[in-house]
Amino acid sequence: MQGAKAIEIEDPYIRMPHQIQNFVRLCEAVVKLSNIKRIDLITGYDDELQKTEAEQKLGEPKQSLLEMDIIFEYDFNPNLHDREIRLDNGWIVKIGRGLDFYQKPESWFEIGTNDLSLRKCLETKVDIFRG
Amino acid sequence: MQGAKAIEIEDPYIRMPHQIQNFVRLCEAVVKLSNIKRIDLITGYDDELQKTEAEQKLGEPKQSLLEMDIIFEYDFNPNLHDREIRLDNGWIVKIGRGLDFYQKPESWFEIGTNDLSLRKCLETKVDIFRG
Repeated sequence: MQGAKAIEIEDPYIRMPHQIQNFVRLCEAVVKLSNIKRIDLITGYDDELQKTEAEQKLGEPKQSLLEMDIIFEYDFNPNLHDREIRLDNGWIVKIGRGLDFYQKPESWFEIGTNDLSLRKCLETKVDIFRG
Repeated sequence: MQGAKAIEIEDPYIRMPHQIQNFVRLCEAVVKLSNIKRIDLITGYDDELQKTEAEQKLGEPKQSLLEMDIIFEYDFNPNLHDREIRLDNGWIVKIGRGLDFYQKPESWFEIGTNDLSLRKCLETKVDIFRG
């Protein structure tokens, strides 16, 4: 993410609470590790209720990112399938499962609940290349 | 934590779910950053129901630590007041508020929900010294 000023995330599955948490974690990494000042998300939805609930939840990182001088905009496309993260310095990250590639812990107090580097993953491919 | 093989945590407030999560996060740091093979926790309780619930929750990191060859034992002392973390290489960490020194986020989707280095703290003193 070094040298990038903007990041675009296309991922149809940023709608359930744990998926929005995955996205918040990505935003936390952006805040901590980069000088990115703009985040764009395009995601999907099944029905209007789900869309309304996702909009409400996504408003929360939007507000706290704004307090850190980072603009976050989101939009919905119900036909979206592919997952892709694009940085404005040319790097592209494609994860087969998108951000939702961690296994659910058996319990919420086990090791790896908070620190995802200790959490088991689902099988997926990660392709990182320069466009 | 480098060079330490065992850690003892005395903290009366490892009983509410978020406090046990704080403790699980400490265990995650132990797993990731040290060669510690034994963790001892002494904590407190208000009543038998709270103690039973805490025992149940603490059994979960106990099991997952065991799978990583780390022994975790806990005990209860209802009269405990002071907070102290002791490493067997002589280092002692005293935090006025114990592990429970983070502010509750205003929402569970804001930046700093997951990455505590981005979360606001409560006022407390941290003393680190070699005993």
